[in-house]
Amino acid sequence: MMISPICFFIFSLVLSSSYAAVQDFCVADYTALQGPAGYSCKDPAKVTVDDFVYSGLRVPGNTSNIHKFGFVPAVVAQFPGLNGLGVSVARTDLGVGGVIPFHTHRGATEVLIVAEGSSVLAGFIDSNNKVYLKTLNKGDSMIFPRGLFHFAVNQGDTPVLMYASLSSENPGLDVLETSLFKNDLSTDLISKTTLLDKSQIRKLKRLLGGTN
Amino acid sequence: MMISPICFFIFSLVLSSSYAAVQDFCVADYTALQGPAGYSCKDPAKVTVDDFVYSGLRVPGNTSNIHKFGFVPAVVAQFPGLNGLGVSVARTDLGVGGVIPFHTHRGATEVLIVAEGSSVLAGFIDSNNKVYLKTLNKGDSMIFPRGLFHFAVNQGDTPVLMYASLSSENPGLDVLETSLFKNDLSTDLISKTTLLDKSQIRKLKRLLGGTN
Amino acid sequence: MMISPICFFIFSLVLSSSYAAVQDFCVADYTALQGPAGYSCKDPAKVTVDDFVYSGLRVPGNTSNIHKFGFVPAVVAQFPGLNGLGVSVARTDLGVGGVIPFHTHRGATEVLIVAEGSSVLAGFIDSNNKVYLKTLNKGDSMIFPRGLFHFAVNQGDTPVLMYASLSSENPGLDVLETSLFKNDLSTDLISKTTLLDKSQIRKLKRLLGGTN
Amino acid sequence: MMISPICFFIFSLVLSSSYAAVQDFCVADYTALQGPAGYSCKDPAKVTVDDFVYSGLRVPGNTSNIHKFGFVPAVVAQFPGLNGLGVSVARTDLGVGGVIPFHTHRGATEVLIVAEGSSVLAGFIDSNNKVYLKTLNKGDSMIFPRGLFHFAVNQGDTPVLMYASLSSENPGLDVLETSLFKNDLSTDLISKTTLLDKSQIRKLKRLLGGTN
Amino acid sequence: MMISPICFFIFSLVLSSSYAAVQDFCVADYTALQGPAGYSCKDPAKVTVDDFVYSGLRVPGNTSNIHKFGFVPAVVAQFPGLNGLGVSVARTDLGVGGVIPFHTHRGATEVLIVAEGSSVLAGFIDSNNKVYLKTLNKGDSMIFPRGLFHFAVNQGDTPVLMYASLSSENPGLDVLETSLFKNDLSTDLISKTTLLDKSQIRKLKRLLGGTN
Amino acid sequence: MMISPICFFIFSLVLSSSYAAVQDFCVADYTALQGPAGYSCKDPAKVTVDDFVYSGLRVPGNTSNIHKFGFVPAVVAQFPGLNGLGVSVARTDLGVGGVIPFHTHRGATEVLIVAEGSSVLAGFIDSNNKVYLKTLNKGDSMIFPRGLFHFAVNQGDTPVLMYASLSSENPGLDVLETSLFKNDLSTDLISKTTLLDKSQIRKLKRLLGGTN
Repeated sequence: MMISPICFFIFSLVLSSSYAAVQDFCVADYTALQGPAGYSCKDPAKVTVDDFVYSGLRVPGNTSNIHKFGFVPAVVAQFPGLNGLGVSVARTDLGVGGVIPFHTHRGATEVLIVAEGSSVLAGFIDSNNKVYLKTLNKGDSMIFPRGLFHFAVNQGDTPVLMYASLSSENPGLDVLETSLFKNDLSTDLISKTTLLDKSQIRKLKRLLGGTN
Repeated sequence: MMISPICFFIFSLVLSSSYAAVQDFCVADYTALQGPAGYSCKDPAKVTVDDFVYSGLRVPGNTSNIHKFGFVPAVVAQFPGLNGLGVSVARTDLGVGGVIPFHTHRGATEVLIVAEGSSVLAGFIDSNNKVYLKTLNKGDSMIFPRGLFHFAVNQGDTPVLMYASLSSENPGLDVLETSLFKNDLSTDLISKTTLLDKSQIRKLKRLLGGTN
Repeated sequence: MMISPICFFIFSLVLSSSYAAVQDFCVADYTALQGPAGYSCKDPAKVTVDDFVYSGLRVPGNTSNIHKFGFVPAVVAQFPGLNGLGVSVARTDLGVGGVIPFHTHRGATEVLIVAEGSSVLAGFIDSNNKVYLKTLNKGDSMIFPRGLFHFAVNQGDTPVLMYASLSSENPGLDVLETSLFKNDLSTDLISKTTLLDKSQIRKLKRLLGGTN
Repeated sequence: MMISPICFFIFSLVLSSSYAAVQDFCVADYTALQGPAGYSCKDPAKVTVDDFVYSGLRVPGNTSNIHKFGFVPAVVAQFPGLNGLGVSVARTDLGVGGVIPFHTHRGATEVLIVAEGSSVLAGFIDSNNKVYLKTLNKGDSMIFPRGLFHFAVNQGDTPVLMYASLSSENPGLDVLETSLFKNDLSTDLISKTTLLDKSQIRKLKRLLGGTN
Repeated sequence: MMISPICFFIFSLVLSSSYAAVQDFCVADYTALQGPAGYSCKDPAKVTVDDFVYSGLRVPGNTSNIHKFGFVPAVVAQFPGLNGLGVSVARTDLGVGGVIPFHTHRGATEVLIVAEGSSVLAGFIDSNNKVYLKTLNKGDSMIFPRGLFHFAVNQGDTPVLMYASLSSENPGLDVLETSLFKNDLSTDLISKTTLLDKSQIRKLKRLLGGTN
Repeated sequence: MMISPICFFIFSLVLSSSYAAVQDFCVADYTALQGPAGYSCKDPAKVTVDDFVYSGLRVPGNTSNIHKFGFVPAVVAQFPGLNGLGVSVARTDLGVGGVIPFHTHRGATEVLIVAEGSSVLAGFIDSNNKVYLKTLNKGDSMIFPRGLFHFAVNQGDTPVLMYASLSSENPGLDVLETSLFKNDLSTDLISKTTLLDKSQIRKLKRLLGGTN
């Protein structure tokens, strides 16, 4: 009988690892199984330098949105060489008046560097509800400790380009407004668990595409 | 000359560790330095079983508040034997209609067990804004994966007692409403970074004691 | 040709991960490969809230045994949502006079909470052979630091229900009596390595089903 | 006024770290505080190569005991350079007929290498009570996975020298017989939690110096 | 008697931690003890946003050296808020023809982003001696997996500015040429262990200030 | 239709894990996928004690080479039971005058024990270019902290046998001379990034088989 294409594909995956005795890295194979530690490893014989190089940060993120906020991640989902290495990067663009909305990164720490622009008001909030706020200028860097809410606003008169370094290859991005208002979480439940008024909730669900 | 009391105190700390060659644990010494991994270790010669036993969960948390939500943590800050061990517990009480407000735990995972009561509607939200919602009854347990927003509501007609297990001895508790409205983060900045209306923000700042 | 069912099954696994760019969790797929970090991840498109909810702890463990000891684990083997998250829970029931036998958890730490009952004498032993012993009552919690031998006895006049929190999703349970006497480890070897008398060993092998 | 000697001592500790901006290692300072991650770091200005060299394994362990078992650890308690590095070693000597008693290492993995001698029967027991048993000869190595019970017997006609590698700088050594019989754990409690006969327990308490 | 100043200083450190029950972070106190996990924590009552902000990357590194290589680290030694958080950043400047010399980071992974300039030839070498080489342009990023030798050369006709993200707050920088030639390692020993000619070694020792 | 052999093979892998509910270890299956945490787990039903025993260290490494250096690793690539356990071992043989060349282990720490021979001059270099050098004799052990360059020379008049313990099951071995001279890294690029003379580089490329 013929071997079905998919079987052959699996076959190549299976064989590959027998050539992988010594591995310095585990480049993500997006077509194979994932585990708690990340993606399966690409056949080392097929790994090239291009698995470790990413050009996606050349282009500004699209800032044509309500926040004038562009975000281009270079995390393991786009950048296979990061698999299992515990670090990732991203590019953030803010138009004049642009905003990085209130968010967290599931336990990852972020270090933000202002590469272009000025007067970026950035902040985070600790578990005692204390606010840490600073205006950053070109060349400044700021830490957002693991798991804490943070945000930024471009108060300058030029666009801002920032690079983020994250302490995980898969840091996630949990934005408050979309977590609350861009899904089917009921208005009643949101109101009870956040103290927000139902009218406010309905207004933002309409804006962001939430239901219920 | 006499040795000043504080010097003597330091002296005892310093000596203590020389008796600590083999350590199975590092009981928190709340009076000494802390590091990234936790508190300094109490002199092993002074460690007793009571460092590993906590009775604070005997008593229900105070539910006389807007959420009818009582919370009694048994984390390293109260329970010195947990220092460095990567796990902690807590007791949660909900009056009839009580609510665990929308919150995260800085990267820790929580497993909640319903010990008493029924009809607890619990949920979390993932990084794709998908909602995971379930009604829990006595004996049910639910996972809130690390760093994700979660909450619960007692929809039953009796008080609820739940025990939480957390994957960190110092998980933190970042409640959305207090992070936003119980500090001096400006109404303007909150509005820009969350899309909430200023009137809503001012109303909740008044309720929760926020300024600006 | 037709694709064989198993190939199709693999095919679905393989495809699935390509939709899994951002993962907050890795729900265990019990039918796929395991690695050192745990089970492979279930296709995120097939994950539901039920992967994060477990009802197995509703029912008491069976205490009709020599120790009047019932144990119901909610670890990754039963509770797929725990995969990779570093925490698990369990329910322990003790009849009047019931006993949790002498055991360890392969390096995991346990925190035990007495939910029902009283007068539970619990203890652990450190590497210096020092005994830590305490009588626990309803609401008390006790820590058994990672890898140390521990045990408990219900000395009260009512059944006991306890919840355990463990610092691993796969903590294991190494009970001394079954490790020694419920296998084919030879009586001679047990005697040499434990100093126990051969008559004692044979007696317990008969009781527990060991051979040799 | 004069500074008291101890203050001066603290002073030197405090100053030292200001010279420690870049640290590749953290040599244990046995006279200062410990934390969950290990000992405080010795002043880098005082670190020498001798903090990384240990001669204690030159000499065989004393085998004049009931097991003809000599053990010489080179863990962080003796070998300060290991502090925080996650590995340690030890030397084990067994006379003819010598025995490494049944024990665990609190979650650490051990790899044992037979450097001299032959016919070493070594084994471990997994959480399913399965026994893994092998006779080792000169040059053989065997893994005892983290936290599992293990043991060895010299069945050869010459003394045995073995080197152990452990996956922790502070692995601990929990020997069953001394954990049970070399302390004040009551005969009644041991009997209930291990199913051993009280006569057996009393006999071994007498042998090993236990009370109660 | 008066308390000596240093004692008073220690006193404040000791007291401080009693206010530190809930800690989201552990800002480095450069004047106190260090441990394997990093610096002791600054008194939380004294932590300000400035502990999380660093302006040192505003200024280019000094490129007036043999490699036209400027390096400005923002690691825990300069940036106290990074303590224990597992990530750091740095700024690298290369003049026209400038070179980042052959080096490693003690097990840390680096992600390099080209912020300004073009035609940067960057590479690393794996444990199988395979070379991974790529010419990077503005906006490109490249991964240097943990512990591997890497380097870069500015082959463009303008200066280059790059930002590095590292998977450790204290990554270290082990440059081959200074490790070999800027110390008292004997010419004979270098020659034996690297196969380099003694004349070559002596020449580079003269250049870099080595002895022996 | 028939199931193709490879499908059947996958099938058996897939089924196997359903029997693996409680796993104390994850023995490497060299024929299946790898992930960042290591190899996939062998079917527990097929695991035997031989997966945990290795005899490869019985035989000296081949010292018929320029360094009179024999190296026999017992890492996860040869020793499947080590998968995921964070430790490995190796045997090193040095002829009279033999040399362990200048190398690192990608972030792993090594502890070296001299089992046979004497007068082994061993050393490492820290990130401040400081040299740590010691002559080791039989029974001595020395630490090479994670990621630092190290080396050794047998200055005695007998062959040397040493055992290495490493803090990773897959430590890697990055030898300076082969990293630089046993590949196609161009002479020009090596010269620029190491300051070595091109004549020296070409000489060693010829010796070691490098090109360009």
